Amino acid sequence: MQRPLGMVYTDLALETVQRTTEMPGLHIEEESVGSTLITRVFVSSPEAADHIDKPEGQYITIENRDLIKRSKKAQEQVAKSIANHLTNLIPDSGTVLVIGLGNRMATPDSLGPKVVDRLMVTRHLGDILPPEQRKNLRPVAALTPGVLGLTGIETGEIIRGVVDRIKPDLVIAIDALASRSIQRILTTVQITNTGIRPGSGVGNKRSAITQETLGVPVIAIGIPTVVHATTIAQETIEILVRELKEQHKFYQLLDDLGDNQQKLIEEILNPWVTNLTVTPKEIDVFMEELADVVSKGLNTALQRDSKTYTLLTDLKA
Amino acid sequence: MQRPLGMVYTDLALETVQRTTEMPGLHIEEESVGSTLITRVFVSSPEAADHIDKPEGQYITIENRDLIKRSKKAQEQVAKSIANHLTNLIPDSGTVLVIGLGNRMATPDSLGPKVVDRLMVTRHLGDILPPEQRKNLRPVAALTPGVLGLTGIETGEIIRGVVDRIKPDLVIAIDALASRSIQRILTTVQITNTGIRPGSGVGNKRSAITQETLGVPVIAIGIPTVVHATTIAQETIEILVRELKEQHKFYQLLDDLGDNQQKLIEEILNPWVTNLTVTPKEIDVFMEELADVVSKGLNTALQRDSKTYTLLTDLKA
Amino acid sequence: MQRPLGMVYTDLALETVQRTTEMPGLHIEEESVGSTLITRVFVSSPEAADHIDKPEGQYITIENRDLIKRSKKAQEQVAKSIANHLTNLIPDSGTVLVIGLGNRMATPDSLGPKVVDRLMVTRHLGDILPPEQRKNLRPVAALTPGVLGLTGIETGEIIRGVVDRIKPDLVIAIDALASRSIQRILTTVQITNTGIRPGSGVGNKRSAITQETLGVPVIAIGIPTVVHATTIAQETIEILVRELKEQHKFYQLLDDLGDNQQKLIEEILNPWVTNLTVTPKEIDVFMEELADVVSKGLNTALQRDSKTYTLLTDLKA
Amino acid sequence: MQRPLGMVYTDLALETVQRTTEMPGLHIEEESVGSTLITRVFVSSPEAADHIDKPEGQYITIENRDLIKRSKKAQEQVAKSIANHLTNLIPDSGTVLVIGLGNRMATPDSLGPKVVDRLMVTRHLGDILPPEQRKNLRPVAALTPGVLGLTGIETGEIIRGVVDRIKPDLVIAIDALASRSIQRILTTVQITNTGIRPGSGVGNKRSAITQETLGVPVIAIGIPTVVHATTIAQETIEILVRELKEQHKFYQLLDDLGDNQQKLIEEILNPWVTNLTVTPKEIDVFMEELADVVSKGLNTALQRDSKTYTLLTDLKA
Repeated sequence: MQRPLGMVYTDLALETVQRTTEMPGLHIEEESVGSTLITRVFVSSPEAADHIDKPEGQYITIENRDLIKRSKKAQEQVAKSIANHLTNLIPDSGTVLVIGLGNRMATPDSLGPKVVDRLMVTRHLGDILPPEQRKNLRPVAALTPGVLGLTGIETGEIIRGVVDRIKPDLVIAIDALASRSIQRILTTVQITNTGIRPGSGVGNKRSAITQETLGVPVIAIGIPTVVHATTIAQETIEILVRELKEQHKFYQLLDDLGDNQQKLIEEILNPWVTNLTVTPKEIDVFMEELADVVSKGLNTALQRDSKTYTLLTDLKA
Repeated sequence: MQRPLGMVYTDLALETVQRTTEMPGLHIEEESVGSTLITRVFVSSPEAADHIDKPEGQYITIENRDLIKRSKKAQEQVAKSIANHLTNLIPDSGTVLVIGLGNRMATPDSLGPKVVDRLMVTRHLGDILPPEQRKNLRPVAALTPGVLGLTGIETGEIIRGVVDRIKPDLVIAIDALASRSIQRILTTVQITNTGIRPGSGVGNKRSAITQETLGVPVIAIGIPTVVHATTIAQETIEILVRELKEQHKFYQLLDDLGDNQQKLIEEILNPWVTNLTVTPKEIDVFMEELADVVSKGLNTALQRDSKTYTLLTDLKA
Repeated sequence: MQRPLGMVYTDLALETVQRTTEMPGLHIEEESVGSTLITRVFVSSPEAADHIDKPEGQYITIENRDLIKRSKKAQEQVAKSIANHLTNLIPDSGTVLVIGLGNRMATPDSLGPKVVDRLMVTRHLGDILPPEQRKNLRPVAALTPGVLGLTGIETGEIIRGVVDRIKPDLVIAIDALASRSIQRILTTVQITNTGIRPGSGVGNKRSAITQETLGVPVIAIGIPTVVHATTIAQETIEILVRELKEQHKFYQLLDDLGDNQQKLIEEILNPWVTNLTVTPKEIDVFMEELADVVSKGLNTALQRDSKTYTLLTDLKA
Repeated sequence: MQRPLGMVYTDLALETVQRTTEMPGLHIEEESVGSTLITRVFVSSPEAADHIDKPEGQYITIENRDLIKRSKKAQEQVAKSIANHLTNLIPDSGTVLVIGLGNRMATPDSLGPKVVDRLMVTRHLGDILPPEQRKNLRPVAALTPGVLGLTGIETGEIIRGVVDRIKPDLVIAIDALASRSIQRILTTVQITNTGIRPGSGVGNKRSAITQETLGVPVIAIGIPTVVHATTIAQETIEILVRELKEQHKFYQLLDDLGDNQQKLIEEILNPWVTNLTVTPKEIDVFMEELADVVSKGLNTALQRDSKTYTLLTDLKA
C-alpha cells in the first residue's frame, strides 16, 4: 500500500524514500557495523529531492535497536559512528556554532539543550591555553535559543542574529525529531548537510535553519523521540486492512474507508487530537543517555587532536 | 461490544461501571457544578464490587474538560470540589500521613511527589506554634517512598514501616493513574476510600496500600496522566469494526479478529510493546498545574480552621 | 573609616553613595510604604557619577527585610512597588525584549532565567487574539542568552545580535547581583535606567548591556543573592578594628594592618579565595519566591490594560 | 590558641583531633597515594573518644586538593580509595541498605539523594538474573527519606521503620557535612563505622542513625560541602589576633575579646546569623562530580564480583 505522504509527517528522509525506486540523482548505500545499521541517501537531482520530499544533499541514518535495551556497547558503537560521519562532513578547521534546538522543560523535546550542556565549548578559551595547544584547538560556541512559545521570537531569527555577529564557519543544529515509525524512536540518529526546514518536529512550527537563511553551511543532527498518536491510529488501520485483505475477506474496504479515516482518527484522539505524542515510559532516562551519545560523537569530531581532547575533558570545557 | 476487561487496564472505577446496569449495592449519583461533572459511585455488595472489578467503597470522579485549556477557572472549580469531597471523607481531627507515590524523575509519573512538595507539612510544628493556634492545627506528615526500580524495596513495605512507627490515624495516597480513555487524561480526578491495589498504574507493579495492609484507613487520590499505546491501537480497531458493521459491510469481522487482535497490536507497537505511553506534548506544564490543584484541595481539607490555614500559608509550612 | 572602593565590588548604587555628601547632580529621596523602604538616587552630573562609581541615571532601591521571613505580605508589597516604579520608567507602548541574564544551573545566579520562565511572552500572539484585545496588548519577547563559560560567546554579543534583528523599543535585563552587605542579600531590588556594565555580578565577567552598546534604552532589574566570602572577612576585620578603637585600646592598628589585610584574607579563604560565596542555606526556595515577586511586578508594568492582563493570565502566556 | 570546641561545629573527626596528643586508645595513621592523603584515626578508649568529641570507632579521611580543579585523575584516585576502604569495612555478603540523607532540592545538602540516584540497586533483581549470576549478586536497597522540614517526621524514625521491615545486614548512610575549614570543602571524604549522631551537618537537626538506634551496623560516608559563615568570621578574628600578637603589638586583646567575639560575629552576619553558608560558586557542578566519585567507590565495594558488576553496569541497575 502506498502510504499517503504528508498525512503523517516525518523528519526522517529514510522514511520517505522508496527503496525499490531507481532514478537519476538518487543513490542509497547501506552498511552494517556490529548491531548498527548505517544508511546513506545521496540526493542530487530535483526529481530525487521531490521523490523523498526533502532537499538535495546527504542523509545519513545510524540505527541500533539495542539502544532500547540501554546497552552500553550499542551506545558506544553509535557514538563512534556519529563521530566518523561528522568528521567527513565537517572541515578540518574553522569556528563551529552548535545550536541546541527545542524546549529544555519538555522532556522529549530537550535533546538539543541537553547535548549543548555536554558540549566542549572552547571559543572563549583561546587566550587561556598555552600557545602549543591553542593551535590544535577548534573554536566551538553554543546557543540554546529556546522555543517560540517561550521567547516570542522565531528561533531562526535568534540564530541569524547571533550568526551575523560571531560569523562561524559552520552551524550544527541538534533537535528531537518526529518519526512515522515506532521502531525508530530512540534507536535512530539522522545526520544531514541540508539543515532544518519548517515541519512538525516535536515542537510546533519551525523556521528554516539552512545555508540559504544563515549564509553558512548547516549540518543537522536529529533523533526521533516521539511518534504522533495519529500515527499509531493510522498504522493500526493500515495493518488491520492489510490483514483482512490477506484473508480475502474484504476487498473494497480501503477505498470506502478513505473518506472516513481522518474522521475516525479524530474521534479516537478527541479532545486532544494533534497534541498527543507516544513515548516510552522511561523517556527521561533515554534522553540523558542519548544526549551522552550524541555529545560524545560531536565532541570527538570537533576536537580531532587527541591531546587537545584529553586536555578539554580534564578541564570539563 | 463488551470490552474484554483486564486486557486494557484502568485505574478508574468510572471506566468499568456499566451505567445501565441496576443491581443491589450499586448506586451512582451525578452532579454538575459549572463546567465540572461529579460522579459518585457507591459500591456496597460483593456483586457490585465484582461488576466494577474494584473493592466495595466510594469512588468520586471529578471531571472538567477545560483543564485541557489550562483555564484558571476550571482549576479553581476542581480544587474546590476536591476540598469539599475530601472534607466529607476525612475525620475532623487526627494525624494524617500523605504518601506521594510515583517517580519524581519520570514526568507523567511524578504527580505524587509534586503534590507532596506543595503540602503543608505540620507534624513537627506543634511546639513552635503558640498554644491557641496549636489546638486547631492538624498534624500532617508526608513521605515520597520512591519506586521499586530505584529503591529495591516494595513501596508498600516502606509505607508499612513508617506507618508502624508514627501511627497516623489516616493515610492519603496520591498517584498518577492509567486511563482507558484519551478523554480522561489530565481532566479527571478520582478520590476513593478503598486505597490502592495492585494494578498497572503508570509505574509497573504496585503492592496494595489499603486498610488491610496498613491497619489504618486509606484514601487514594489519582489523576490519569497517560493512556497506554495499546489502548489507542485497540480503540482504533474497535471503532473501525463498529464503523464497518454500521455500514453493513462486514458482519463476521469481530469474531474472526478475536484471535488476531493481540498479535496485530504487538506488530504495531513492536519493539516497544508494553512500555509505550500516550501523553499530551505539554505534559510537563500540566503536571505542575494539576499538582497545584490537588495540593490546594488537600491542604484546604486538612487544615479547616481558616486562621491556621492562613498562618501556615505565610509560614510556607 | 572610608571603605576602599573597588576592593569589595558591589552592583548596588546605594552601597557606594555617601549619604551625607551634598553635591550638584546628586539627589536622594527616601520613602517608606509599610515595611518597605524605597530609596531613589538621581545622578545627573559627572561628579556625582564619579562619586557613586556608577553612570548618570536613576537608581531605585526597594528594600524589605521581611522577605527573609518569606512573608507573603512583604512579597506583595515589593511586587507592587516594582510594578509602580517600572510603570514610570517604561513608555506606554512599544515592543520590550526581556533578557534573563545568568546561569540557570547555578542557583544563586539563576534569577534572570527564572523570571523569564514566568514572563507573559506575547510578541507571537498578535494574530491569535481577537482585534479588540490586540490593540491593548504590548508585544513582549524574552531571551536567556546563557553565560560565557557555557556558550563561548560574550552575552552582550548574543543580545546585540537579537536586538539587531527584532529591533525592540526597550530592553529590560534581569540579573542576580553581588552585594557588599549581608543585610541586602535577598531583601533588596535595584531598578536602574542605566543598563548593566562590566563588573563582578554573581558570574565572572560581564560585557556592557547599555543604550550605547545596543542602540535602545536598557532598564536593569537586579537582586543581590550573594556576598563574596572576602566581604565577610573584610567586614569582620573592620568591625573588630572599630571595636578596639572604641575601647581606646589600639590606636595605630588600622594603618599597620593596611598592608596585610589582603594577605590575611587570602590566608583565610585559601585555597578557594575568589570563588567563595555566602548565601542563606535555603537559597533554592528564596530564588523561586523572588522570581515570582519580580515577574509579577514586571508583568503588571508591561501589560497595563487589566482585561488583557487577565486574559494572558488565563492563557498562561 | 585552643579553639573553643563546640562553638564552631564540625562533622569531621580529623578537625577535632590534636595530632600531637598521645593517649591510650588513640592511634593515627597517615598515608599518601599520588596526590591523595589518607588519614585513619582509630579511637578505642573513652578518653580518646572524649578527646576527639566523637564515639569510639574508626575514622578514615580521604583528601585530595585537586578535586577543586575538577581533575579527572584526582576523582579516579579518590573513588578508588573509597572503594578500597569500604571493602575493608563491609562484610563479603549480606543485604545493604543505603540511605541518601539530605534535601534533594538544596544543592549543598543534596549529596545523599544524588549518590542514591547513581547506586546499583539490586535487591529486587534476584529472580530476574540467571542462577549462576544470582549467587554473586549482593542485594542492595536504597532510601531517600527526605528532611524533617519536608516530611514532618524525624529522619531516624523513617529509617528505623524501613530497617524493621526489610532487616538489612548493614546500613550505609551518605550525607553532606559541615566543616570547620575552608580547605576541606569538596576536597575531603570521611568514612566512619560509628554511624551518624545529632549535630549540625548541613541540615538543621539530625537524629542518631547508629547501631544502637537501628540494631544493625552503620557506616557513614560524608563530604563537607559548606562552611558556616560564622566560621569565616571567627577564623578572621583568630588570624587577626594571631597576627597582632606576632607583631608584639597587642597582648591582652584575646582575653578582652572573649566576651565580645560572639556579639561581634552576630553583628557581622545580622540579620541572617545562623543560616548563612559559604560555598564555591560552582557548587552545582561539584555536587554532580562528587556524587559520581562516591557512587563509583560504593558500587565497586558492594558488587565485588567483576562479572556481576559489568552486568549491572550494562543493565544500569
